[in-house]
Amino acid sequence: MLRIGVLGAGRIGKIHAANAAAHPRAKLVAVFDVDQAAAQALAASAAAEVRSREAIIDGSDIDAVLICTPTDTHCDLIEAAMKAGKAVFSEKPVDLSAARVRTCLEIVARAGRPLMIGFNRRFDPSFATVERRVRAGEVGAVELVTIISKDPGPPPLSYIARSGGLFRDMMIHDLDMARFLLGEEPVEIFAHASNLVDPGIGQAGDVDTAVVTMKTASGKIAHIANSRRATYGYDQRIEVHGSDGLLRAGNKTQTSVEAGTKAGFATDPALPFFLERYEMAYRLELDAFITAIESGRAPSPDGEDGLKALVLADAATESASSGKPVKI
Amino acid sequence: MLRIGVLGAGRIGKIHAANAAAHPRAKLVAVFDVDQAAAQALAASAAAEVRSREAIIDGSDIDAVLICTPTDTHCDLIEAAMKAGKAVFSEKPVDLSAARVRTCLEIVARAGRPLMIGFNRRFDPSFATVERRVRAGEVGAVELVTIISKDPGPPPLSYIARSGGLFRDMMIHDLDMARFLLGEEPVEIFAHASNLVDPGIGQAGDVDTAVVTMKTASGKIAHIANSRRATYGYDQRIEVHGSDGLLRAGNKTQTSVEAGTKAGFATDPALPFFLERYEMAYRLELDAFITAIESGRAPSPDGEDGLKALVLADAATESASSGKPVKI
Amino acid sequence: MLRIGVLGAGRIGKIHAANAAAHPRAKLVAVFDVDQAAAQALAASAAAEVRSREAIIDGSDIDAVLICTPTDTHCDLIEAAMKAGKAVFSEKPVDLSAARVRTCLEIVARAGRPLMIGFNRRFDPSFATVERRVRAGEVGAVELVTIISKDPGPPPLSYIARSGGLFRDMMIHDLDMARFLLGEEPVEIFAHASNLVDPGIGQAGDVDTAVVTMKTASGKIAHIANSRRATYGYDQRIEVHGSDGLLRAGNKTQTSVEAGTKAGFATDPALPFFLERYEMAYRLELDAFITAIESGRAPSPDGEDGLKALVLADAATESASSGKPVKI
Amino acid sequence: MLRIGVLGAGRIGKIHAANAAAHPRAKLVAVFDVDQAAAQALAASAAAEVRSREAIIDGSDIDAVLICTPTDTHCDLIEAAMKAGKAVFSEKPVDLSAARVRTCLEIVARAGRPLMIGFNRRFDPSFATVERRVRAGEVGAVELVTIISKDPGPPPLSYIARSGGLFRDMMIHDLDMARFLLGEEPVEIFAHASNLVDPGIGQAGDVDTAVVTMKTASGKIAHIANSRRATYGYDQRIEVHGSDGLLRAGNKTQTSVEAGTKAGFATDPALPFFLERYEMAYRLELDAFITAIESGRAPSPDGEDGLKALVLADAATESASSGKPVKI
Repeated sequence: MLRIGVLGAGRIGKIHAANAAAHPRAKLVAVFDVDQAAAQALAASAAAEVRSREAIIDGSDIDAVLICTPTDTHCDLIEAAMKAGKAVFSEKPVDLSAARVRTCLEIVARAGRPLMIGFNRRFDPSFATVERRVRAGEVGAVELVTIISKDPGPPPLSYIARSGGLFRDMMIHDLDMARFLLGEEPVEIFAHASNLVDPGIGQAGDVDTAVVTMKTASGKIAHIANSRRATYGYDQRIEVHGSDGLLRAGNKTQTSVEAGTKAGFATDPALPFFLERYEMAYRLELDAFITAIESGRAPSPDGEDGLKALVLADAATESASSGKPVKI
Repeated sequence: MLRIGVLGAGRIGKIHAANAAAHPRAKLVAVFDVDQAAAQALAASAAAEVRSREAIIDGSDIDAVLICTPTDTHCDLIEAAMKAGKAVFSEKPVDLSAARVRTCLEIVARAGRPLMIGFNRRFDPSFATVERRVRAGEVGAVELVTIISKDPGPPPLSYIARSGGLFRDMMIHDLDMARFLLGEEPVEIFAHASNLVDPGIGQAGDVDTAVVTMKTASGKIAHIANSRRATYGYDQRIEVHGSDGLLRAGNKTQTSVEAGTKAGFATDPALPFFLERYEMAYRLELDAFITAIESGRAPSPDGEDGLKALVLADAATESASSGKPVKI
Repeated sequence: MLRIGVLGAGRIGKIHAANAAAHPRAKLVAVFDVDQAAAQALAASAAAEVRSREAIIDGSDIDAVLICTPTDTHCDLIEAAMKAGKAVFSEKPVDLSAARVRTCLEIVARAGRPLMIGFNRRFDPSFATVERRVRAGEVGAVELVTIISKDPGPPPLSYIARSGGLFRDMMIHDLDMARFLLGEEPVEIFAHASNLVDPGIGQAGDVDTAVVTMKTASGKIAHIANSRRATYGYDQRIEVHGSDGLLRAGNKTQTSVEAGTKAGFATDPALPFFLERYEMAYRLELDAFITAIESGRAPSPDGEDGLKALVLADAATESASSGKPVKI
Repeated sequence: MLRIGVLGAGRIGKIHAANAAAHPRAKLVAVFDVDQAAAQALAASAAAEVRSREAIIDGSDIDAVLICTPTDTHCDLIEAAMKAGKAVFSEKPVDLSAARVRTCLEIVARAGRPLMIGFNRRFDPSFATVERRVRAGEVGAVELVTIISKDPGPPPLSYIARSGGLFRDMMIHDLDMARFLLGEEPVEIFAHASNLVDPGIGQAGDVDTAVVTMKTASGKIAHIANSRRATYGYDQRIEVHGSDGLLRAGNKTQTSVEAGTKAGFATDPALPFFLERYEMAYRLELDAFITAIESGRAPSPDGEDGLKALVLADAATESASSGKPVKI
């Protein structure tokens, strides 16, 4: 029974706390949030205690800490939990500064405790299946990776301001997915980005529509299209083109219902957003973390994966700004 | 070069005449219609002559006759053309009376000239592929055949009156398709039929919605659903369920365009009606006729197929009327 | 908090017990099974007690009883639980004898406590959506209902022997679904049935492949195809054809992955069987039961629904045996 | 009746000659090819004459010339035909040199005769429908265009050597399609390109795998993925993402057949190559040319479209070579 404490009782903290509470080989011991009421509500719903941050990190009855707090607290909390000997799962991004992440990872390395980063999409059953079958050689040599990833609508401008920008906040998932699927590191990245969805996003210094193309040393190419708007649901699609064929995974819908009328045939929109689309991915992600800790194997994706995706996001941000390709 | 004469310049005559004119190994020599203007127009469009029925049937410069006239003239014309030594293609049904068809087929047998009946759906590329793959053993032993076949809307009541009824006019195609796919003759048939689409159809003594189920001696089952109404286009689907799997063929659409909006994803309706849905089937059907004549092989489907489908349609009509299953 | 006792710790009892335990407004108090070890295992996994049948039915700390025992015990247990004032959820079929069901429902009526029958498919999100949209008038007047329902493979012959036969054991779900979708009672039924999948099934006096067609007083027609074999997964599809269009719901797959190779494009098979296909339906079904009890509304489907589906299954069995249509 | 002469009796010349011969308002008068036998064969199949290049260009019985000869002869022939007062349809690319195209277009402008360039994909029913619906405002403001375009396999190395390279030979179609769908000119282009399919292509100085991203002045982004290899057929897909939704068009298959087995559900591969995929597009393209000439309206796409696609292809070639984005 892995004894778990959760830091952060917001949207994502609730998901992980519920999954921890429901996991047959884990026990949710305690939760923390700066918002006491949120912590109370979450604890009550999952038969756990409310504790202070420190009491969770240092608790002798806690084996693993799930960090679901705001991004700028991740590194401090990872380091504290590492020093307390805990296994750590942290939400992405590790931090908005690659330098800060590097310092943090050094401390992680010294602590020698497991760290897993929440790139949840790697655990989506469809995406994970594509990766597994690609690695099994089903498409031969990978040549091209296509990712289309659009949010249903833009977040509040207040969120945009402290998000680190589209590349570090949103595309970082797709950059990780591209690394996951390519099986080789990109060495160059180029970005075209625009402000088309909401002028406020542009006024906040960010973009809302972007296409990135990346190339690996051996010449594999990945391209990613992002938008903060998709009226037809949360658009999440990947394709891996190889010498022997194609593997792709498309959107999911709520039902398999199809209507036929004079206008044609109509199906559901794509699932609305990440809570619905990646519900199973979050469950499998936590299961992978728990299983890794139990078995003594290093969890994946780890801190290096967190760093590498951030480095790509930084480079994409630079390219969009300078108008030039950036070497990694 | 097979020299062809076409009897009947209506909707279906035009299709066959155009296909004959365009066929690389055939020549459309002459056309006939009781409506002189229609015959003129068709002849002009295909660089053919207008001739009398007799001049076509007896023409020494004509090898094959395509009979596209009203149903009640089919048998007389088949017999006349046979006696004149012509190869004959006749539209379905051969006649509305099985007894009349039997007499006709005796004359055909004596004449020894090839007769092909226009069950065009056997030549639809998708349906033909299903049948070919079923015969090749891909689904193992056939167990169940499902056919859904709905017209986009009812024909004029004037047509209904002389049509022979839904089973002989419309379902006869599906009854032939069931035989084609089962690979074994049905020995019993049961029909449930209703008048739901247009009260006028009921007043004319006909039905517009029907489900038939048939069983073969070895226990294979086929069921067919028919309706004179489908708002979403011409609904034409088949499924063959076997011990090793399923083969099915669905509807076709004009384009592959898909629209994503708040309401979901939308595609085209099914192709509107038989001219569009079976355009290629008509071309391949005539090609099969021409190829059979050239090679001296018996064309298929033949008169016996025409008779057997009619016998099933008669039995379905009787079952719908008596409320009892009918042995074939 | 609805306090629940579960009778039967087999395959289906485990599902309902787990759903009860996980439901936010229910508490799983106790479980029973004649197999003590099975009861212990289930109780342990859900933090519930093991009790005798009587101790659950009469327990003052239990509000509702879920009956998941063998079919021939359902009526006795429903009656006992009713007399003890409990709300009852019973798995289908209520009994294999319609007479026995009628007696039971009289006792239920006198007890005046809620009874819900486990026609789980009504709660499948896709099927429920089709029904809701049909009732909302989206396809206009219902004309035709098509149901294709195939198990992935036959059950053990020992199961077949005591199953009541394909119509009462398997098709009863589809007969209920036909009633659910038609919105009107069938008045006549005809069945074609065969033994094609396993000769042992025939030797046990049962069939494994069947097509049923039913008609309502107003002329609506429903047809159902059943087979005990489908190599490509659990085949569960419905279609409702109406005057204004079509609503249908198809199979579900594990992932959205599609592979493109020389052979074409390939997707997953259908979900393997009912545990996977109807996982969400079972959850929503129990939620509907709990919500009905809480709100004081009668649960649906109820005992009458259980009886009516059984009457149809009896009639289908008789038709398959006599070769004649049967009036309901 | 538009009287047509065809220059070039190769693969594409045959298509246009056959379509001209079959067009109800055109007459194929004469064909030319340096390969006399090829010209004879084509003329015979379409009941046309064989003539010299000059006799066609200057023929008083010829209204329009279709130029289907090798790329390096296009401009000379366009100019000659223009001077002879003919309407001209020329295959793409107009030339591999933008400077040469500009000179040619000056002569076209002076001649004042219609010139249409063979970007056949604009006439594909699915792609044309997407464009029409985008222009009608169905997706709101265009934000993002995604094009995936892969040949089934690489052409012979001899062809590669004189092709002008992937961007001018293959992607030029997609660059034109991007312009067509964006409705606004790209002002910057960046290309990542690799040699992954066939080392011989790299030795010939060309690439076989490429991703291009382009941006317009208002910030719209288009990205294109090209590969000379797709084992699953000719992969031709477009997507237009706008403020109000998505319109996309996918691949087409030979049949609608689907097979269900233990392995899952399988459909046909994509249509094999351009002759099959764009058969209808070629017919509609020639019809558009003929209709434009008849009506006195300027045909589209015209010489400017040919030039602009070439300028983009040149810029992509430069970007792939320099590693920098290129302003248009």
